[in-house]
Amino acid sequence: MIKVVIIGAGNVATHLYQCFTKSKQLDVIQVYNRNIQHLDFVEDASKKVSALDELKEADLYLIAIKDEAIGELVAKFNPKNGIVAHTSGTQPLHILSKFDNYGVFYPLQTFSKIKPVNFREVPLCLEANSEDNLEFLKKIASIISNQVFEVNSDQRKALHVSAVFVNNFSNHLFTLASDFCKKEELPFDILRPLIKETVDKLENLDPYSAQTGPALRNDKDTISAHLEMLDGDRKKIYTILTESIQNLHGKKL
Amino acid sequence: MIKVVIIGAGNVATHLYQCFTKSKQLDVIQVYNRNIQHLDFVEDASKKVSALDELKEADLYLIAIKDEAIGELVAKFNPKNGIVAHTSGTQPLHILSKFDNYGVFYPLQTFSKIKPVNFREVPLCLEANSEDNLEFLKKIASIISNQVFEVNSDQRKALHVSAVFVNNFSNHLFTLASDFCKKEELPFDILRPLIKETVDKLENLDPYSAQTGPALRNDKDTISAHLEMLDGDRKKIYTILTESIQNLHGKKL
Repeated sequence: MIKVVIIGAGNVATHLYQCFTKSKQLDVIQVYNRNIQHLDFVEDASKKVSALDELKEADLYLIAIKDEAIGELVAKFNPKNGIVAHTSGTQPLHILSKFDNYGVFYPLQTFSKIKPVNFREVPLCLEANSEDNLEFLKKIASIISNQVFEVNSDQRKALHVSAVFVNNFSNHLFTLASDFCKKEELPFDILRPLIKETVDKLENLDPYSAQTGPALRNDKDTISAHLEMLDGDRKKIYTILTESIQNLHGKKL
Repeated sequence: MIKVVIIGAGNVATHLYQCFTKSKQLDVIQVYNRNIQHLDFVEDASKKVSALDELKEADLYLIAIKDEAIGELVAKFNPKNGIVAHTSGTQPLHILSKFDNYGVFYPLQTFSKIKPVNFREVPLCLEANSEDNLEFLKKIASIISNQVFEVNSDQRKALHVSAVFVNNFSNHLFTLASDFCKKEELPFDILRPLIKETVDKLENLDPYSAQTGPALRNDKDTISAHLEMLDGDRKKIYTILTESIQNLHGKKL
């Protein structure tokens, strides 16, 4: 079995721990966190560690902590062997260059405490400082996921921005619409089927071809009527997104 | 059986026709369109009509044409009986006030030619000029859908704007992200699981509570790094949506 140490106690660390412990090929021998009380997701107390020098030899040390804490951890961490990999979408590979063997193991997904994750469908974006180390990370990634990608640091940064657009920003649009419906005493449930269909459509169409709506049709009456109903941030967002749709699809306001 | 005439040949008319003809309680006796050649989705040639005075007596005349064409059609249309209803998200109820019995039958969903629609999950937003007519529309709506809502004209306008936010605008964000990935030679497929999870999450969480990301965390380093990678519309959209998330969630840039 491949011996793994997980470093961190957040959502990514928790979900990786839960996924790894289900695999017969992976053995999570320890989980490290500065504050041991946050390791409540680890059943076996003997596996919980809050001092770096208590970490045993492992094949993989997986760092799943906040971006801004990685530098400090790296400075204090001196494993005797194994590969050290981080799970960050934004941090470059070379932040780990003090180690002999290192890489990136970035799961491109949004994790929340309460919702279980099916790792088989989570894209794992891998990078390493050598072909051998990359092969090793691919081996581990393939044990838990069907979506394994080799992604360099520039590509990973592009993916991270893209993730903000497709996840954070679209979720915010859902929030703004939800608030707008609430004001009119309409339940958010009424919008759910439309949101679901927006995404289901992309199984057969690329998003460029799936675009519809008043901006694409250059339907000035509807656009004006909508803008009259909006104010503040909602009005600004409506304006810039309408312009952007028209710019991209070659329409004119 | 309830006799229905459908007026129009676009996506909404086509999907309503296909749904209604499957029901044993509804009988689509005719489908009208100015250009009869666009009625290729109607199998029975004897049901295709291109002159309004050829329309037979029906219980319901359902207008599913472009918003801007409704006024002209209404002026020329003089049915002897039945309820006349339009299917528009933006047009008020009273655009049909020349008739004795009228209403609105607005399906809140995005329709495309190639993709079948399960009407049982499509919210149908109803309004009418009398209680009796509303009850009649509810009866028909309940035959085809489990999601029947009574929605007044102001509420319907709010829903239509909300639909632009959750469907058109989020789809545009997917397009921008897709383009950004293409530039870095990454397939759009790598983003699909994240998009799917963004929406699946809303089964258990309202979108306000589901919000994550650098804007919510007020993670200035990541926001700056992202802005440096972006230009043009993408940069403007990133800026305004980040500000809007922070305004709504009480964070400060």
